[in-house]
Amino acid sequence: MSEQALKELLVEELRDTYSAETQILEALPKMAEAAASPQLKQAFQTHVKETEGQVRRLEQIFKILGAAPEGNTCEATQGLIEEAEELMGEDHPAEVLDVALVMAAQKVEHYEIASYGSLRTLAETCGMGDVARLLDETLEEEKATDARLTALAEGEINPRAFKAA
Amino acid sequence: MSEQALKELLVEELRDTYSAETQILEALPKMAEAAASPQLKQAFQTHVKETEGQVRRLEQIFKILGAAPEGNTCEATQGLIEEAEELMGEDHPAEVLDVALVMAAQKVEHYEIASYGSLRTLAETCGMGDVARLLDETLEEEKATDARLTALAEGEINPRAFKAA
Repeated sequence: MSEQALKELLVEELRDTYSAETQILEALPKMAEAAASPQLKQAFQTHVKETEGQVRRLEQIFKILGAAPEGNTCEATQGLIEEAEELMGEDHPAEVLDVALVMAAQKVEHYEIASYGSLRTLAETCGMGDVARLLDETLEEEKATDARLTALAEGEINPRAFKAA
Repeated sequence: MSEQALKELLVEELRDTYSAETQILEALPKMAEAAASPQLKQAFQTHVKETEGQVRRLEQIFKILGAAPEGNTCEATQGLIEEAEELMGEDHPAEVLDVALVMAAQKVEHYEIASYGSLRTLAETCGMGDVARLLDETLEEEKATDARLTALAEGEINPRAFKAA
């Protein structure tokens, strides 16, 4: 009974993550548009392509599980994107908005790192090695994106905003 | 001008995190109450004490900055907690609910890891070493909590839920 319930939880959490990814896919081009730094703009555009691949990977997992991907709305991601949109609507100097955009993007990345990390553990628990491997591929991509954003913030975006004083 | 705007962003993001921590402080006892595993219950209770310390650390930072901690509502945390509450309201077997509670808690932890990580970088950019150090203390605590939850999931909570089948 619990094994079935665990698999249901896996599907439910995967649907949540699918909703998160599709919301992020909609928000990223707006963030790329709002970014002043060409490197940051490029980072967001690259992540759009990567996110499209992650959505396809999730669809592959739903096929393996014989479940439909739709049905959940991820409220946490709604809140995260709402925060990013508020920042874009505020009157920040361009260099400072870039700092804020990286912060907002890293919160989204970490939400995904937590999601894919615990989904992978859950898939392993359920004995679904193939699903766990697919989830791990995305997890590694999200970690790499987060590290790229940290490097961008520390190396360029933040110092530039400070110097623009 | 940008330097002032950067400091305003720092205060704004700190207020967001203060709102997140106070929301988490309210949610954690309910999660401890809902947990079946004594180890998980204990982990949540320990994190309540830790979170109280983190709230005090933030208040110390607001004193340094001469700013008031209140004023923002963190929508992302509202969404994260809403998700945790939904899980607690659903009809899961006790062992499976524990799995879901760890997943929800790790999403919250990662939200905080992203917040404190980028806040620390921002404080460093603003030349506020004392604030950055305080933020780093909390960051390390959040990372340790996340690692403890991963170990608990992999070592006990998930295998137990699977065996209960």
